[in-house]
Amino acid sequence: MDRYKKNRDFMKADFKVLDEIKTDRQKGLPFPSFQKEYDETKELIDLPEVDREILIKHNVFDCFDDRRSVRKYSEEKITIDELSYLLWTTQGIHQVTNNNTGTLRRVPSGGACHPFETYLIINKVEGLVSGVYRYLPLEHKLMFMYIVEDLVSKVDEATPRQPFVQNFVSKSAVIFAWSCIPYRAEYKFDVTAHKKILIDVGHLCQNLYLAAESIDCGTCAIGIYDQQLIDEMLGLDGEDEFVIYMASVGNKIK
Amino acid sequence: MDRYKKNRDFMKADFKVLDEIKTDRQKGLPFPSFQKEYDETKELIDLPEVDREILIKHNVFDCFDDRRSVRKYSEEKITIDELSYLLWTTQGIHQVTNNNTGTLRRVPSGGACHPFETYLIINKVEGLVSGVYRYLPLEHKLMFMYIVEDLVSKVDEATPRQPFVQNFVSKSAVIFAWSCIPYRAEYKFDVTAHKKILIDVGHLCQNLYLAAESIDCGTCAIGIYDQQLIDEMLGLDGEDEFVIYMASVGNKIK
Repeated sequence: MDRYKKNRDFMKADFKVLDEIKTDRQKGLPFPSFQKEYDETKELIDLPEVDREILIKHNVFDCFDDRRSVRKYSEEKITIDELSYLLWTTQGIHQVTNNNTGTLRRVPSGGACHPFETYLIINKVEGLVSGVYRYLPLEHKLMFMYIVEDLVSKVDEATPRQPFVQNFVSKSAVIFAWSCIPYRAEYKFDVTAHKKILIDVGHLCQNLYLAAESIDCGTCAIGIYDQQLIDEMLGLDGEDEFVIYMASVGNKIK
Repeated sequence: MDRYKKNRDFMKADFKVLDEIKTDRQKGLPFPSFQKEYDETKELIDLPEVDREILIKHNVFDCFDDRRSVRKYSEEKITIDELSYLLWTTQGIHQVTNNNTGTLRRVPSGGACHPFETYLIINKVEGLVSGVYRYLPLEHKLMFMYIVEDLVSKVDEATPRQPFVQNFVSKSAVIFAWSCIPYRAEYKFDVTAHKKILIDVGHLCQNLYLAAESIDCGTCAIGIYDQQLIDEMLGLDGEDEFVIYMASVGNKIK
């Protein structure tokens, strides 16, 4: 299986390589910011405080057991309370730690690096115009970025070859697109960062699955997407920040 | 950042490379088995049927909010009912699909490949001798593999350099060690399989975190481990099957 060797090796533990190098952290370089900067003159959108009253399916046992990948959604919009809850669950911050250099969130991340930003492609959320938004976890607010012309067909083009249901992604209420800013983890873990980043985004997406289940929404993770088209749609440079995973969410069809 | 380029590229979507090759599935090669074979003459250990009565913290909202990485455990053993629940949550099978070629489980996996096996290094579980076990998800049973001499010091040696709490892993009640059998995903996704596998193991570990929280146990994911020592301890060849992630579980200190 020589064809796969390099990729398989990538999946193994390799902490010993850190003995031979100095990480940027060890060199005393400044900590990377744990939230991407934004234009502070922009108007931000308050997200409602998260309240357990929003749950429809309370029991974690049922959430585990009933969770499926859902690729068919109703036309019904999701509420901003629901969106607030999904964001809180996946990337919401408990605590800023270590002299403002790290965060603890509702998902674990190797070295507490949390090298992600959450972009939303919003289609059907009550009170919000369709378009691209970014979540600001520190403020628990949304930043509206822009309207995308022909949003549906652009999403279809950027998420091809999905199994079972043609073009389901663009029919969802909201698409989560998680970018990574790899330097946030490279700073601490250098070349061993990247395995951790991929595992971490899995932690986060599993919370989205369960949280969606708990409010009677359906989710489907999206691993197949056009890297360049999505990065362009979200205004990412594709090198220091790029999308690594996506998921669509919508109301289940009753 | 040329130093990181190859690794960063690994994290990107690259489905288009599949246009230029035929996957083993497309070549019509036989489907890989979704559960590793085992010696059927061995006596298996029945796991109790999973029952929601086991939950202490029922509400999924609280599980999300209270989950932390826990590195200090009490001396108290966990019960086999608790272990059964944790296995059910992380790798339990809902359904065997597609003419016996795939499975649906309590976590999503790209292409329903589920390229993992679950090994347990058991230290403090009621009714079970310390040693190495394998979970058989199809049967929902445990297979006892062997006793390891000097288990604690071997675990310490194999899980060095953990942050905050020295040698916490060996003080847990049970260590989950997830191996991957990459061919199960390569068969369908060829060189694009490996990114998916890492994300998938993150899904699975997040369920462990939440399930442990729901029964008042603590969990800590372990990304730093000695690949060779762990693979040897579990009897894996290190090429076609190797550990990709671990987590320790134990009762919280009250």
